[in-house]
Amino acid sequence: MTRLVLTRHGQSAWNLENRFTGWVDVDLTDRGEAEARRGGALMAEAGFAPEAAYTSVLKRAIRTLWLSLEALDRVWIPVEKDWRLNERHYGGLTGLNKAETAEAHGAEQVHVWRRSYDIAPPALAETDERHPRNDPRYASLDPAALPATESLKTTLERVEPYFNSQIAPKLDAGQDILISAHGNSLRALLMVLFKVSPDDIMGFEIPTGNPLLIELDGLAPRECAYLDADRANPTPPCP
Amino acid sequence: MTRLVLTRHGQSAWNLENRFTGWVDVDLTDRGEAEARRGGALMAEAGFAPEAAYTSVLKRAIRTLWLSLEALDRVWIPVEKDWRLNERHYGGLTGLNKAETAEAHGAEQVHVWRRSYDIAPPALAETDERHPRNDPRYASLDPAALPATESLKTTLERVEPYFNSQIAPKLDAGQDILISAHGNSLRALLMVLFKVSPDDIMGFEIPTGNPLLIELDGLAPRECAYLDADRANPTPPCP
Repeated sequence: MTRLVLTRHGQSAWNLENRFTGWVDVDLTDRGEAEARRGGALMAEAGFAPEAAYTSVLKRAIRTLWLSLEALDRVWIPVEKDWRLNERHYGGLTGLNKAETAEAHGAEQVHVWRRSYDIAPPALAETDERHPRNDPRYASLDPAALPATESLKTTLERVEPYFNSQIAPKLDAGQDILISAHGNSLRALLMVLFKVSPDDIMGFEIPTGNPLLIELDGLAPRECAYLDADRANPTPPCP
Repeated sequence: MTRLVLTRHGQSAWNLENRFTGWVDVDLTDRGEAEARRGGALMAEAGFAPEAAYTSVLKRAIRTLWLSLEALDRVWIPVEKDWRLNERHYGGLTGLNKAETAEAHGAEQVHVWRRSYDIAPPALAETDERHPRNDPRYASLDPAALPATESLKTTLERVEPYFNSQIAPKLDAGQDILISAHGNSLRALLMVLFKVSPDDIMGFEIPTGNPLLIELDGLAPRECAYLDADRANPTPPCP
């Protein structure tokens, strides 16, 4: 059996401020760092020994990975960072406070943007400083590939090919893998791995500080469980 | 001009204990972490913005790099870890206290092992737990390539081809690069970059917490300086 662990970054500064974050590169809070260390300790207790790791280009996921690797005493494994594991891009909502957005657009509209599968918030203009074209970390990429806003559907459309081309071949070759990412890029991975439908995916969420361990036969998941089984969690979409 | 910064990890637990470390994966002390942050802050002050980074597979260099990247707010750049940037392997001296080794072998012999260019300490048996064949991080490599001991000469023989094949093409293409490594792998890089002779190399040493900034025209160094110019340093081998 090959082992894959999905871990979600813990609390960031903007979680505290209740703002739409998306691709803004906010850091972990002290609590977020503690959640990352706890997740790493749970992986170590489970005897998980990843041979490679993948993360986004956002520091809250990268630092969660680093703290996990320190807990595992495996900081030496190769790590690939890629924008295709980034959080969903919240377009014109990026940086706005959720309560203020609800006042401006109505709570129902905000609910639709947050919870619908294929409806994206308003797109950013290319000149908007929040547009990825204006961030040096994306300068080497094809500008046409960079989103001005995303739904979960369009998030999946970049997560899935990345997983299939970069990560799946290593799993299929028997390498144990760790992925540190974000609420919605992890939802997209759950859709790919467990064939969760668009209607069902919003009911699944990987908690912070409690990694999801998946045992695979080739690329077929056979079992999965949160590493802290005692915490009240949403049911994982396991086989 | 392309910019290359060489940074050396700070104090590790075995520096404190005055033991031969080599490839043993000891961690930074609190002081070593502070030195790494200081080095990163000096790079940030100098406006250094590396596009990629390289380090060894040893945590004292990896964590020095991570702390530097945090200070630079560039944790998102690609990082490649490779054993060919490891510290020189101290063979049979690995783990021994330097004073005890001098008592056992004589101070003069220890001086030869430490300071000669091409004399290596006694080789480890392949069954020795300190031999790299018995460390899982080297399991995917050709066992014949793994050293049982090294001189600076044989260290250079693995650092130079790695630099030439992986790092030099990026510098030559104009990418600014950060390398976090060890006393002797950095000496080997100085030999490659500045054509320092075997006779002269032992007189050069990059201090900890004070990165060396090199400005290159293609692969030809034009200027170099320690980022903290006020500290009394050994003269760098600059053009």
